[in-house]
Amino acid sequence: MSTEFDDVTYQDIKDAYAAISSSIFETRQRKAVTLSRLAKAELYLKFENRQFTASFKERGALNKLLSLSEDEKKNGVIAMSAGNHAQGVAYHAKRLNIPATIIMPENTPTIKVEHTKEHGANVILHGEMLSDAADFAHKMATDKGYIFVHPYDDKLIIAGQGTIAIEMLGALPDLDAIIVPVGGGGLISGIAIAAKAIKPDIKIYGVQSKLYPGMIEKLKGNEPICGGSTIAEGIAVKQAGELTAKIVKKLVDDWLLVDERQLEKAVSMIISIEKTVVEGAGAAALAAVFANLDIFEGKKLGLILSGGNIDQRLLATVLMRDLVSQGRLAKLSITLPDLPGALAKLTAIIAKSDGNIIEIAHQRIFTHVSAKDTSIEVALETRDDQQLSAIIADLEGSNYIVTLL
Amino acid sequence: MSTEFDDVTYQDIKDAYAAISSSIFETRQRKAVTLSRLAKAELYLKFENRQFTASFKERGALNKLLSLSEDEKKNGVIAMSAGNHAQGVAYHAKRLNIPATIIMPENTPTIKVEHTKEHGANVILHGEMLSDAADFAHKMATDKGYIFVHPYDDKLIIAGQGTIAIEMLGALPDLDAIIVPVGGGGLISGIAIAAKAIKPDIKIYGVQSKLYPGMIEKLKGNEPICGGSTIAEGIAVKQAGELTAKIVKKLVDDWLLVDERQLEKAVSMIISIEKTVVEGAGAAALAAVFANLDIFEGKKLGLILSGGNIDQRLLATVLMRDLVSQGRLAKLSITLPDLPGALAKLTAIIAKSDGNIIEIAHQRIFTHVSAKDTSIEVALETRDDQQLSAIIADLEGSNYIVTLL
Repeated sequence: MSTEFDDVTYQDIKDAYAAISSSIFETRQRKAVTLSRLAKAELYLKFENRQFTASFKERGALNKLLSLSEDEKKNGVIAMSAGNHAQGVAYHAKRLNIPATIIMPENTPTIKVEHTKEHGANVILHGEMLSDAADFAHKMATDKGYIFVHPYDDKLIIAGQGTIAIEMLGALPDLDAIIVPVGGGGLISGIAIAAKAIKPDIKIYGVQSKLYPGMIEKLKGNEPICGGSTIAEGIAVKQAGELTAKIVKKLVDDWLLVDERQLEKAVSMIISIEKTVVEGAGAAALAAVFANLDIFEGKKLGLILSGGNIDQRLLATVLMRDLVSQGRLAKLSITLPDLPGALAKLTAIIAKSDGNIIEIAHQRIFTHVSAKDTSIEVALETRDDQQLSAIIADLEGSNYIVTLL
Repeated sequence: MSTEFDDVTYQDIKDAYAAISSSIFETRQRKAVTLSRLAKAELYLKFENRQFTASFKERGALNKLLSLSEDEKKNGVIAMSAGNHAQGVAYHAKRLNIPATIIMPENTPTIKVEHTKEHGANVILHGEMLSDAADFAHKMATDKGYIFVHPYDDKLIIAGQGTIAIEMLGALPDLDAIIVPVGGGGLISGIAIAAKAIKPDIKIYGVQSKLYPGMIEKLKGNEPICGGSTIAEGIAVKQAGELTAKIVKKLVDDWLLVDERQLEKAVSMIISIEKTVVEGAGAAALAAVFANLDIFEGKKLGLILSGGNIDQRLLATVLMRDLVSQGRLAKLSITLPDLPGALAKLTAIIAKSDGNIIEIAHQRIFTHVSAKDTSIEVALETRDDQQLSAIIADLEGSNYIVTLL
C-alpha cells in the first residue's frame, strides 16, 4: 500500500508544520501511567486540549490562513461553526490581521459567541440549524469574495491537522497505533497520511460516537442515520467530507464506536486521573480503548485528546452521573410509617453507617403504599458501593422496604 | 536582609534539586494568557497538580527518603496524612523499596485510602481526628523505630519543596513575585529561601484561607481560631510549623486571605480557561490575585498550582455553584393561579425566551399565598444573566409574581 495520498501528501504536511509550528503549541505527549496500568497497554496522551483555543482545530485553520495571497488576506475569510473551528479561525485571523466573519446558528450559547468575539471575529447568528448557517456562510462568501475556511474537507486543513503526527512520532517513534476521534474526518486524514509515511506499519483507528457514525456509514455507502443528544458535539457530524472519506478509506485500519456512557466515563477518568479537562469528543479515543481492551492489550498507543471545550454544566453533570454509576451517589425509595420519630430512626441507621444524606423528599399523595405509611426518597452520598450495600442491608435488617432508584 | 536562613540554606535546596530532579516532573510554568488579560498582570502558572501523585508534596517527601541511611531505609518510614503528603510518601517509598506506613483518620474516604494503598503503603486507619492519628503515628514511630516523615516542619521537606523556585526562576528569571498557598508552611518556606537567594528583590506572598489562618495568627502570637468546612483542605492546617514560622517571619513579604467563594471561583476559572484540574488549595494563589487586583496590576507573577486532588462530587458542586453565581442556573419562586393551563402559560413564556427548565416543584401547603393560588419553584438554565433578567421581566410583564431564590 502506498503511504502517500494523491490529494494531500506527506510533503504537504511537512510544509504545514514548517509554516505553523512557531505559532502553535507543541503540546505534550505524556505517558498516562495509571490509565496504562488499568488498560494493560501503554497509553500516551496528546494534549491538544491545551492549545490556546483548547483544540487541535488551530493547526488546520492557521495553515489555511497562511496560504492566502495578500489580496485574499485583505479581503478576509468566513467560516461556519458553533465550536472549536470558529475559535481556531478567529484567533489566528486576528493575529494575522485578516478580517474574519464567523456564522453561527441562532441558538448558539452566548458564551461561545462571546469567546469567538473576544478573538476578534465578526460573529453573525443565522438560522436554526448548522445547515442553514452553512448555506448562509457559503452565500456570503460568494457575495463578498471572502475565502471560505472549511472545517475539514480542504487539503490545507487536512495538512495542518496532520502536523500532530509529526510531533507524536518525533517523540514516540515506536508507537503501534494512533487512536483518533472522527467527525468530518480532517484530523484523522492528516494524521493517517503523515503517520503512515513516517512509520508504514503503524495502525490508525478512527473513533465515532454511536449516535453520529457519519463517516463509518458513508464508507459503507449508506445514508447515515445520525441524531440524538451526545456529549461529543465535536464529532457529531452527519455529513463527513468527500476528500476525507477518500483518504480514510485507503489509510484507516479500523473503526470503533463508543456510546454516551463510555464517553462520560472517559471524561471523568481523564479529569480524576490526569487532572486535565477534555470535552466529550476529546475523550473518545480513551473511551474506545476501554471499550476494546482485548484489541489493545500490550500495545503502545497514541491517543489524541482533541479538545477541552466542555460546557460547565455538562461537565458537572457528567461528574455527578459518574458518581452515581460508582455507587457513590444513590437515591433510595424507602417506605416508613407516617408517625413521629419514624424519620429520626431511619436517619440514625444511615448515620451509624456514615452515609451522608443530601436530600430527602416525602411522597404522600402519589404513592402506592398504605395511607398510614409514607414513602420517602433519600439521596445519599457514600464512600463507595460497598458502603451503599451495607447501608441498604442495615435498613432492610430493620424492616424498612428499600428500593434503589 | 540576608537571603539565607540558618536552618535551611539555598545550598540545601540546590542539593535537594540534584537529588530529586530525575524522579520528579519538571512541571511546566506556562503563561496564562486569558487570565493575565483578566487580571491585568502577567500570570505564570506552575502546574504542580501534574506531578504523578498530583501535588508538590512528592518533592519534600522524596528528598527526605533519599537522605536516610541504609539501616533507616530497611526499617521503614511512617507518616500521618489523609491527603497529598500520604500519596507522595507512599509512591516514592515504594519506588525506593522503603517500607512505608501511613496513618489516616478512620473517616478518611475509601478512595484516598485505596489510592495510598495502590502506591504500596501499609495504611492504618486510626482515630477520629487528624490529631489522634498524628499521636498514634508518633507513638508507632517510637515503638517500631520508623523514621517519621513530617508533612512540613522538617529541614529536608522544606528543602525539597524549595526546588520549585529553582525551576520557576530558571525559566522566568524576572518574576516580580511568587504567590504561594500556605498550610503548615513547608512549601512557602522552601520557595522563599531559594527565590530570595536567586533574586533578592523578589516578593513572596503567602495565601491562607479565611477559615484556617493558622500561620498568620501564629506570626501575630495569637492562638489561631480555625474551623469550618473549606474546599481547600490542603491548607486547612491549624498548627503551623515551628521551623516554618521562623522562616516565613523573616522572608515572606505579605499575607493574603481568601474566602470560600473566591476559592470556588478560582477552581472554576482554572477548569474553564486553563483546562486543568486543581483542588481548592491549588487555586488559592489565583483566588488571591483576583481578590487583590490593585496590588498585582502590571506585575509578572508566578502562581503555584499546588495540587489537583479534588473530590469528584465537590468539583461538580463547585462548578454548579459557579453557574448559579454567573446567572446561568437560577431558581425562581413564582405565584400562579391553581387552575388548569396556568403552568402551560408560564412555561410557554419561559420557552419563548429560550430558557431551559430543569426542575419544577409545587408548594401547595407550606406557602403564604392564597389557597386559590399556588407557588411553584422553577429551576432554570439560561445562557447568561442577561437572558435570566429578560425571562424574569417577561414573567413580571405577564403579571406573575417572581422571586429569585
